[in-house]
Amino acid sequence: MATAKLVISSKNYSSWALRGWLLCRMAGLDFDEEIVSSDDPSMRAELLVLSPSTLVPRLIHDGMTIWDTLAIAEYLNETFPEAGLLPKERAARARCRSVSGEMHSGFSALRSGLPVNLRKFTPGFHVWSGAQADIDRITTIWRECLALSGGPFLFGAERSVADAMFAPVTTRFKTYDVAVDPVSAAYCRRILAMPEMIEWYADAAEEQDEIEELESEF
Amino acid sequence: MATAKLVISSKNYSSWALRGWLLCRMAGLDFDEEIVSSDDPSMRAELLVLSPSTLVPRLIHDGMTIWDTLAIAEYLNETFPEAGLLPKERAARARCRSVSGEMHSGFSALRSGLPVNLRKFTPGFHVWSGAQADIDRITTIWRECLALSGGPFLFGAERSVADAMFAPVTTRFKTYDVAVDPVSAAYCRRILAMPEMIEWYADAAEEQDEIEELESEF
Repeated sequence: MATAKLVISSKNYSSWALRGWLLCRMAGLDFDEEIVSSDDPSMRAELLVLSPSTLVPRLIHDGMTIWDTLAIAEYLNETFPEAGLLPKERAARARCRSVSGEMHSGFSALRSGLPVNLRKFTPGFHVWSGAQADIDRITTIWRECLALSGGPFLFGAERSVADAMFAPVTTRFKTYDVAVDPVSAAYCRRILAMPEMIEWYADAAEEQDEIEELESEF
Repeated sequence: MATAKLVISSKNYSSWALRGWLLCRMAGLDFDEEIVSSDDPSMRAELLVLSPSTLVPRLIHDGMTIWDTLAIAEYLNETFPEAGLLPKERAARARCRSVSGEMHSGFSALRSGLPVNLRKFTPGFHVWSGAQADIDRITTIWRECLALSGGPFLFGAERSVADAMFAPVTTRFKTYDVAVDPVSAAYCRRILAMPEMIEWYADAAEEQDEIEELESEF
């Protein structure tokens, strides 16, 4: 048994599950996964973007329970400083937290208009203007961070909290066949090619849960 | 001229302005305020809870710009560790970040149903069920934190990031005459009696901006 447990919901449908899991992996934490069924009412509410959930992702470690994604990120950064989850340089660290916080509290049009669904592929999907404004802001953040840091990740050679926060966006762009500028498209390919993402996609493909509202064409 | 600048929107209408400003005050930062007019389209969108804004609150300090409230909180905690914005004890710190993160990304029903408006008082306001569920969750957080820490603030004798994050909620309860349990009501009175809150209310009362959509009875 591992020393920690991460409670998550669907690997196919949940952006928050992916963020929490990636952060734990990036930190090098030894952890077991517990997956809550999407039949659970609070899980359905989370997956349908009706309400955030305090139940997932939830990290249990050293007798503590931490239940918010940014709180998990800060906790892991403190506990495993050698993992470099936050940039060492002060200004870069402030920027990393700013863009991560922006993803944490914002982009509701993207969240509701293009829900995460890793098993789905919808070429020619029509992106409405509210979601397009979110996409434009996100790709602006990516281009600025990559230009400042030199890449290949948002804050340089090492993956940071920000890459985990935006990873679900790269799956949305893949699912809904969203066209973006070349720099952002290359960044998406880089994230989707990470071994952790390949493993996560394989797990999602094997999940049996289906949420009808997220499978219909809309 | 102070060494730092905090850009905020309305003191009467903006929850995010209040959080950022309180954090700077609690940290002991010497800063000037810049208030963006609510006529600015992106300000209106923020105040009408239509979209978060990357423009406010925005802290400019030491050549850096930090534009997310939790990023500002973490930056101030790093820069002014003696201010104790985050609890010293590890488990309390993880809990403080968890509840602050929950406020940062959640409670959309409360936000849209009971918008911040310090100049308004609406006795007998009817709280619909979605917002009531948010209120119940928030007061549960408060009671748990106060019981664990012993109060008088959420994480003990000193004010923390969490108190700043929830401060706008205490103004909502006052504006809309929301009845809560005695422990939560006492906590609200304690926050509203802080000298910084009295100063903020006085400034809000003198603001001239009026946003019609937030003044009508709804």
